[in-house]
Amino acid sequence: MSHHAAASRPRGRSSRVLTAIYTSVGELVGEGAEKITFPVVAERAGVNPTTLYRRWDSVHALLEEVAVAALTRDGESAPDTGSLQQDLTEWAQVIARDITRPHRARYLRAMVSARTEILASCPVTEKRREQASEVVSRARERGEKTPSVPQILDHVIAPLYHHVVFALPVDGEYVRRLVRDVLAMAE
Amino acid sequence: MSHHAAASRPRGRSSRVLTAIYTSVGELVGEGAEKITFPVVAERAGVNPTTLYRRWDSVHALLEEVAVAALTRDGESAPDTGSLQQDLTEWAQVIARDITRPHRARYLRAMVSARTEILASCPVTEKRREQASEVVSRARERGEKTPSVPQILDHVIAPLYHHVVFALPVDGEYVRRLVRDVLAMAE
Repeated sequence: MSHHAAASRPRGRSSRVLTAIYTSVGELVGEGAEKITFPVVAERAGVNPTTLYRRWDSVHALLEEVAVAALTRDGESAPDTGSLQQDLTEWAQVIARDITRPHRARYLRAMVSARTEILASCPVTEKRREQASEVVSRARERGEKTPSVPQILDHVIAPLYHHVVFALPVDGEYVRRLVRDVLAMAE
Repeated sequence: MSHHAAASRPRGRSSRVLTAIYTSVGELVGEGAEKITFPVVAERAGVNPTTLYRRWDSVHALLEEVAVAALTRDGESAPDTGSLQQDLTEWAQVIARDITRPHRARYLRAMVSARTEILASCPVTEKRREQASEVVSRARERGEKTPSVPQILDHVIAPLYHHVVFALPVDGEYVRRLVRDVLAMAE
């Protein structure tokens, strides 16, 4: 084994293991596996279950980590079209298209079904809060009236996620309606 | 066996069996059972699994039936205080108090985690739609401006259920805020 290989091994190996774990969780969620446990994930990923027990407190923590990564991969930055209504509509359309894909919807359900305690905050919501803040700040700088960031989360984001989790239909017209409604709160 | 007992047996027996099945599902959901199947429910209820296979297409259909019954038992009729804001606030507070109880929140998560196909409508939402329609009709008869029934579902009910399913905090102030927001849409 060369010096170079020995030196780089920890990072390379650890990243390969993580990728195998994440991919296995993704596959299991995608297949609609009813029972996802550390041993089940370890077997699929070809790693020792100890690796999982050491890194995550519970399989729910691992599921949540994977779900948040999968669920916020869409548009890292919010649109900047010069109009609040247009920004909100495009942003919400991207989110709606993403979370209504069957694989993503399964992640969402897997994530919520793992929740038992009330959380101070949800990482998915926090990501949306950052994006909504960007959009609102730019509109305020342009002198536009805007709804508040919590109003955008409660009246655009929450109904979208509600519909996906409850398996109710979401389409472009629904998204446009939510944005029109929240703009009625602009001050 | 008397003639009377024989005649009444079908209804009495069937109702006892149903009660045992519903109660068993409730117990299993309450215990956070990870895998609820027909054989598991049948064993707990002390009935033959065939009884379940005959009556429900899938264990998801049974779970949904029990969940809807549990989740809409609160206030069968909506409040009638003479003020739209007061009616909506009291109605939403009753729902919020009910669905945030740990047992109810588990039902909700069990119900959504069983959903795989997009539904034309959700029985829980339909129940809320009826109640919202009552409140809106009475306000319109009094000559008040009102938001539409879909707006009340999207902007009061959906965020409440979203918060409960995602295990985010819900309190009285949150409910009052949602109602104030939806009233900004009144026309």
